[in-house]
Amino acid sequence: MAPEKNSLSERVSKGDAAAVARAISKIEDGSVDASGLMKEIYQQSRQGLVVGITGAPGAGKSSLVDKLALNYRKSGDRVGIIAVDPSSPFSGGAILGDRIRMQTLGLDEGVFIRSMATRGNLGGLARATVDAVAILDAAGYSKIIVETVGVGQDEVEIVKAADVSVVVLVPGMGDDIQAIKAGIMEIGDVFVINKADREGVYSTEKELESLLSLSSRADGWEPPIVKTVATDGTGVAELAAAIDRFTAVQQGVDVTSERRRAIARWRIVELLRERLLASVLESPASLDTLDRLADEVATRRRDPYSAVEEMMRLGSH
Amino acid sequence: MAPEKNSLSERVSKGDAAAVARAISKIEDGSVDASGLMKEIYQQSRQGLVVGITGAPGAGKSSLVDKLALNYRKSGDRVGIIAVDPSSPFSGGAILGDRIRMQTLGLDEGVFIRSMATRGNLGGLARATVDAVAILDAAGYSKIIVETVGVGQDEVEIVKAADVSVVVLVPGMGDDIQAIKAGIMEIGDVFVINKADREGVYSTEKELESLLSLSSRADGWEPPIVKTVATDGTGVAELAAAIDRFTAVQQGVDVTSERRRAIARWRIVELLRERLLASVLESPASLDTLDRLADEVATRRRDPYSAVEEMMRLGSH
Repeated sequence: MAPEKNSLSERVSKGDAAAVARAISKIEDGSVDASGLMKEIYQQSRQGLVVGITGAPGAGKSSLVDKLALNYRKSGDRVGIIAVDPSSPFSGGAILGDRIRMQTLGLDEGVFIRSMATRGNLGGLARATVDAVAILDAAGYSKIIVETVGVGQDEVEIVKAADVSVVVLVPGMGDDIQAIKAGIMEIGDVFVINKADREGVYSTEKELESLLSLSSRADGWEPPIVKTVATDGTGVAELAAAIDRFTAVQQGVDVTSERRRAIARWRIVELLRERLLASVLESPASLDTLDRLADEVATRRRDPYSAVEEMMRLGSH
Repeated sequence: MAPEKNSLSERVSKGDAAAVARAISKIEDGSVDASGLMKEIYQQSRQGLVVGITGAPGAGKSSLVDKLALNYRKSGDRVGIIAVDPSSPFSGGAILGDRIRMQTLGLDEGVFIRSMATRGNLGGLARATVDAVAILDAAGYSKIIVETVGVGQDEVEIVKAADVSVVVLVPGMGDDIQAIKAGIMEIGDVFVINKADREGVYSTEKELESLLSLSSRADGWEPPIVKTVATDGTGVAELAAAIDRFTAVQQGVDVTSERRRAIARWRIVELLRERLLASVLESPASLDTLDRLADEVATRRRDPYSAVEEMMRLGSH
């Protein structure tokens, strides 16, 4: 069952950027041959480093990612960037800041940039993102940066699946830290206070330090706080160094395998969830039934729970 | 199949707060009798107004929700509040600001407050939230406020399911508006600029106005911008009035039924997704298989796609 000569996965493994783009589109669209493609892709896995970067909107993540990518380029790394955008639920997709980005990095062939947005309910953005990372990995990108906006559960799961998670804050967030704490504090392996030329850096740093001192990690790692000004590149080398330090330490710690197992489990469950739903909704007849039931629920002639029972019976045939 | 005397759903319909709390716990835990309970609950639906409030962390949503609730209380409404928290993926749940909140509203029996957090991958936070809203509705709360943090897809879906969606911004967000635009701009029926005593209100308002002028809605509604200072209650009555105006206009517009149908469809699909997964994972044997496959994927002896195929075969027996 070897892939035939010049198959898409083979072109991906040769680092062909057009093939990478096409492969990502395939998994984004959930096309039928995506499954076969991904099986081949996973065989070509090369262990690039996956860096997840998250934080509130306006924290300056995009600039930081660009500068970090430039830093990696100087060391000869090929860099893949996946920007995950929370998209409009109605219009179904918006791409942020791609134009600006292209000005800095776009002409460099050693950098691959892709935005991924939610495509309605049947998509699995988190799953698609993780697959896109695997494609970039197979294509030989040695650093893969996944940037997500927001603190939603999807975003958290995406960052969780990275080798290193970077959480970006800005000075003077005050009650934001309170809010962010709940969602992403625990997933940060490295913390960044970006826009560190602004007022309030000191108090944000103190607040963050005291929050971090409250928790202790199973792997014994104490997340460092790096101050950056992404717009002029200040602190970006320090961020890269902190990321390196974390990955170096992790290689010697057995807890990583526990983390990998949790990630693998999550990926299987996500994919399973998607596949099961697709298996019920794949026939036009079941989509008709869904439309009818939606109508009945909308007009309160039926409750959603008994509607689902009817859909489940449909799936068991 | 009438519910027996003093059943949980009957106690809910009498407005018994303890019963409401228990019913919400049941649907949060995904307990087996939740389905039967929800069928009864949906029969008791009373058409309370559901107000969704979202915005970035630190925008002051909680204070605003509290003041809006107080405003509704003065008109004699019973108010239910669901605060949706993006929770830690590792520790599995954190409740924000409940203590502060209790000081303002907690002793008022006409207000029911509940925080809901994600409970791992198998939970369906959005679905559970919508069910909790139905429970509050059945219990006779005439205003139900759903507050979400962040701009993730889950949050967007929750707010989408509300009768009115309020998007909260703060002055001086700059590039935040850019980011928020993609995710939640289109779902806002009413916009709030909170902390309107701060610098930068004027420019934020102008920026928002120009963004809003770019899009036109199918229902012809032009979302108003309300300026508030939630901490001292400024503008809260205006917000309540804007919400009323929107709901009054919507009652005469046929597009609402399209919106309701889309929401109903989404709810059925969400619930179906959850049920299908549960049907595969319900046996201890399949959980063992999942653990084994997760281990194989983590150690790269297997790819996630073929692992899922094995899980699918398990489900078809």
